[in-house]
Amino acid sequence: MATKGKFITLEGSEGAGKSTNLDTLCELLRAHDIDFYRTREPGGTPMAEALRTVMLDAWDEQVDGMTELLLVFAARNQHLNNEIKPRLARGQWVVCDRFTDATYAYQGVARGIPTDYVEQLERWVQGDLRPDLTLYLDLDPAIGKQRIADRSQDRLEQEQLAFFQAVRDGYLQRAQREPRICTIDAAQPLADVQAALSAEVYKFLAAQTA
Amino acid sequence: MATKGKFITLEGSEGAGKSTNLDTLCELLRAHDIDFYRTREPGGTPMAEALRTVMLDAWDEQVDGMTELLLVFAARNQHLNNEIKPRLARGQWVVCDRFTDATYAYQGVARGIPTDYVEQLERWVQGDLRPDLTLYLDLDPAIGKQRIADRSQDRLEQEQLAFFQAVRDGYLQRAQREPRICTIDAAQPLADVQAALSAEVYKFLAAQTA
Repeated sequence: MATKGKFITLEGSEGAGKSTNLDTLCELLRAHDIDFYRTREPGGTPMAEALRTVMLDAWDEQVDGMTELLLVFAARNQHLNNEIKPRLARGQWVVCDRFTDATYAYQGVARGIPTDYVEQLERWVQGDLRPDLTLYLDLDPAIGKQRIADRSQDRLEQEQLAFFQAVRDGYLQRAQREPRICTIDAAQPLADVQAALSAEVYKFLAAQTA
Repeated sequence: MATKGKFITLEGSEGAGKSTNLDTLCELLRAHDIDFYRTREPGGTPMAEALRTVMLDAWDEQVDGMTELLLVFAARNQHLNNEIKPRLARGQWVVCDRFTDATYAYQGVARGIPTDYVEQLERWVQGDLRPDLTLYLDLDPAIGKQRIADRSQDRLEQEQLAFFQAVRDGYLQRAQREPRICTIDAAQPLADVQAALSAEVYKFLAAQTA
């Protein structure tokens, strides 16, 4: 069918149920006999995972949005060249837990890095590669914060509520501008979230065979 | 005297005698009762040193110039904000083993990253901050390679001779364009290299008090 694999990303801030819904997405693809590769950002190669660790560790020094911006794109460059692009080129699908929309939301809107800086790096590192489908799990961060209260939290997860409200604003702005982003209400009961996500994936699959 | 510290960088490729001549430079400043801070790039803060390790490790994956470019500027952003800028602001001098001229030479010319990419990141991360004086130890890389043959070598030091010839070309191009860069012939006997370096530093110090 496809001569080139499809690239699907899942986005959402802390507590929105990304891991569970990523499992649901993978089961759907498996049920359709689609050969796919599941991965995550920042990370996805040994070097990029090492950068993820450096980025999310709690450092005894100020870490600003510019450092984060450059680090996530360094890791993304490794991930794209060594895993994502070769797989898509040979027809395998790639499912990724977070991608560049997260950079627009976290480093762009929440950290205040100008959007054109993110766009510039996106062009340098990705060329014209963009996800074919993005599923965004949208949730009031006050609820998300409660849901993850009993987990151990990394440097970004320890941010205050206002930060996550800005992240949400960033995602919603992206979703308005990018038709590939499907916003799913993650405040619903899990079964309803999964049904909504499945509906979007079926629609996408149907469009591929049409 | 100075209300703002001066920023001096030392550049040179492998085997040019950077460490020894950095010691000479520091002794000169000490003899003039100048309060200075000695540091290096990539690195200079705990997080930036962790990035240096990731950057110079031998990875079992392709690492290209774009990844290196983004990593060195991420580390540089940490170093500038947490160490270099606060020190210069309070009047301390900063002596740094390598800085952005190395990025132009290694990632720009030797790795083939367009110069305007390096310039763009330099503007984002440094604003208008540039070294006040740069001492570049110039050496035929064939000689440099011989000098470091018995040291353990990191990922970049293991590159072939053609890479280091391109690095040298990059430095020489920078030196032509930037009057702050003093080129010192590092093929001379060490005492002569030190004398040439000292002469440049005296000239710089004299200009400060003038």
